[in-house]
Amino acid sequence: MSQISKRYQITHNDIASYESIVSSPVNIAVIKYWGKRNSELILPTNSSLSCTLSQDHLSTKTSVRASPTFTRDRLWLNGFEEDISSSVRLTNCFKKLRELRKKHEESIIQEKGADGEDVLPLSQWKIHIASENSFPTAAGLASSASGYAALVQALSNLYDLPLSMKELSMIARLGSGSACRSVFGGFVEWEAGISPNGEDSYAVCVAPETHWPTLQALILVVSDTKKTTSSTSGMSTTVKNSELFPIRVSNVVPKRIEDIKVAIHNKDFETFARLTMQDSNQFHAVCLDTYPPIFYLNDVSRGIIRLVHLFNSQVDEVTNKPKGIRVAYTFDAGPNAVIYAEKSVMKEFIELVMYFFPKKEELAFSSFFPDPFGLLDSKNQSGSSEDINIIPSNLDKYTDSMIRHDPGSVRRIIHTNIGDGPRTLDRSQSLFNEAGMPKRVKD
Amino acid sequence: MSQISKRYQITHNDIASYESIVSSPVNIAVIKYWGKRNSELILPTNSSLSCTLSQDHLSTKTSVRASPTFTRDRLWLNGFEEDISSSVRLTNCFKKLRELRKKHEESIIQEKGADGEDVLPLSQWKIHIASENSFPTAAGLASSASGYAALVQALSNLYDLPLSMKELSMIARLGSGSACRSVFGGFVEWEAGISPNGEDSYAVCVAPETHWPTLQALILVVSDTKKTTSSTSGMSTTVKNSELFPIRVSNVVPKRIEDIKVAIHNKDFETFARLTMQDSNQFHAVCLDTYPPIFYLNDVSRGIIRLVHLFNSQVDEVTNKPKGIRVAYTFDAGPNAVIYAEKSVMKEFIELVMYFFPKKEELAFSSFFPDPFGLLDSKNQSGSSEDINIIPSNLDKYTDSMIRHDPGSVRRIIHTNIGDGPRTLDRSQSLFNEAGMPKRVKD
Repeated sequence: MSQISKRYQITHNDIASYESIVSSPVNIAVIKYWGKRNSELILPTNSSLSCTLSQDHLSTKTSVRASPTFTRDRLWLNGFEEDISSSVRLTNCFKKLRELRKKHEESIIQEKGADGEDVLPLSQWKIHIASENSFPTAAGLASSASGYAALVQALSNLYDLPLSMKELSMIARLGSGSACRSVFGGFVEWEAGISPNGEDSYAVCVAPETHWPTLQALILVVSDTKKTTSSTSGMSTTVKNSELFPIRVSNVVPKRIEDIKVAIHNKDFETFARLTMQDSNQFHAVCLDTYPPIFYLNDVSRGIIRLVHLFNSQVDEVTNKPKGIRVAYTFDAGPNAVIYAEKSVMKEFIELVMYFFPKKEELAFSSFFPDPFGLLDSKNQSGSSEDINIIPSNLDKYTDSMIRHDPGSVRRIIHTNIGDGPRTLDRSQSLFNEAGMPKRVKD
Repeated sequence: MSQISKRYQITHNDIASYESIVSSPVNIAVIKYWGKRNSELILPTNSSLSCTLSQDHLSTKTSVRASPTFTRDRLWLNGFEEDISSSVRLTNCFKKLRELRKKHEESIIQEKGADGEDVLPLSQWKIHIASENSFPTAAGLASSASGYAALVQALSNLYDLPLSMKELSMIARLGSGSACRSVFGGFVEWEAGISPNGEDSYAVCVAPETHWPTLQALILVVSDTKKTTSSTSGMSTTVKNSELFPIRVSNVVPKRIEDIKVAIHNKDFETFARLTMQDSNQFHAVCLDTYPPIFYLNDVSRGIIRLVHLFNSQVDEVTNKPKGIRVAYTFDAGPNAVIYAEKSVMKEFIELVMYFFPKKEELAFSSFFPDPFGLLDSKNQSGSSEDINIIPSNLDKYTDSMIRHDPGSVRRIIHTNIGDGPRTLDRSQSLFNEAGMPKRVKD
């Protein structure tokens, strides 16, 4: 495979423009970020820790192009043009990177003693950005983390900036706090830092994606009819008036971060899982302790939590010993569950999910569960929409405590694993046509 | 009205037996009891404060009879015979009161210098107890508080014990923690105390039921399909492993108790309501912070909470000023909401509840909402089962944020107010026939 360039030159109507294309991963925190100590610089009240999910199943792809012919900065998200100026955070990221480019241009000129003839004046050109998520918006997955990580990496490539990972992470943070974690693959800690100017608040890679290759994730996309509180406004209210929140920040999270790093290091799933579930629950607990209370979990989320704890309380019928904690859940600011488990238990758990949260009859099985790892292969290879009637083993251990939810309560099951950080893509992946307009546009 | 005796003599087949009949109220905490520091003596981790609800709408009635012909202690709850010996708590209450009776008999003998001829040896006779709730068990209302308060008061009457309210409260506490508050009417604090033997852990009346006659309550009985965690086992797990719980006990509750007492004293509804809601939410927050997490609220409970906060955020259309906090919710260890509000806003709020949580078509309106205060009188006087179509005023202020829940999500609306403590009832109210067997028995 040939080396992929960080930047491509496109010549259109005899004018050269430049483009970079990057894809970035989604990350799901196991120790949650909730609360800012500085909302302009996006400095958190506590450190957080996440797993980066594979871009093979979930990612944001971003093309950025600079051209002397562009008359203004423009942005298209999933084909819809957005007003750049309306987003302070986007503007902040953008301004920061342009400033860095400007300094970079000046330093080259100074170094070469030239008058700048050889230096592309990219900092003065307007930019077009197109960004698309590989997952449906309806999946209810926050795309701001992968989106800002892709944007910052793409602009850094385009501007040929000599940025360290730490600097990349800090700039992504200005766009969306959790984006600072999506610049790495594997297991990533966002160190809260203590400096008022945020110089020590950035992500570091705790372990690469190759460290624990058997750890996998499921996203259970849950339907919800209610409007939810945005995480930005929600966390600000929690910081303001939850009386339990300060103790989470000062006494609980620091120890959990240390403990889960040890668990990750040792690939100790039980400890990793217990801390993950406890921290998810505590995050939702401080939301509930906020006034007015913030709810993200609904009855389907509760049903999934119940199923996980039942699964984790199963006993081996031969040895009569507890099978232990084999599955963990975590919930962000919405009703969707993210499940972590070792590859070896996924089939058993997925079958239970499909039984207690059945798909809508009219939905194709392959849309409900694309099965990228071929887990249920014999049943799914046809790819047809026939109703697949899966009866889990040990079902009788669950039926006393679980009800079967309405079909469609879980809308989609995304099976994935731990993955790498942002990828630089080749020119064929560009979201722009030659003129620098998005290939796909929606109104 | 003639004076009601504390004890009646019944002569059956020439043998005299004795009976006392008492009814006791339900109480609903506004600052919650959750957590024991001693589970045998039922000593709580923190003080709590409740409102006693009127016995005109909700009560437990208990008859206790002692007879020399009874061969063993027996108990019937709502017509079903229960095994007394299987309940440690019941046995504890019982033993305590029998011991006190024995001492009382001895002291009378000593005082009179007699050999006891005039003293009824009630402590040696077996007892029959019958207890019935005025509300359907299906209402999902905890009846242990009113039940133990009634039992302890009835036995104290039967045994003619010279007990102070403090002593009564402490004995009721041994049956069920919150029962210690049901021995008073009005606004009642259970002082947690600090003594290891529980001598300073009992309820006191903060203000009588006459203090705030316009304060009313609604119980919204919510359907739930799931098994819930019992409060006894739930609170024990919370104490064991919630990391947020200790701060609630040490830092939050003591101040809230003081603040809500001031609010009650001043009939300051806004402060009373805010503290009530915050404390309910915090109780459910520490349940969620427990591992495995405990959930009592469901989607219908969340819908009610949302409706209350919307109601409280309404603005007067003429003055353009916020109408303020006019309604409070509180939830115990289950999905039912208890609403506190001033009498004057009840109609407006009930109509909204009926709109967003409509009754099942087949249910008679008078079963859904008996309307004891004649709030919707013109519509309800027929008492017929016709579907009453209520369109609340200002409905448009709610429809953006609220969905109409499935009919029957709220099964029943009980409208009541603040009431008095246990009542001694006259003989016509007895639950026993002449032979001392319950009039109503079920198998």
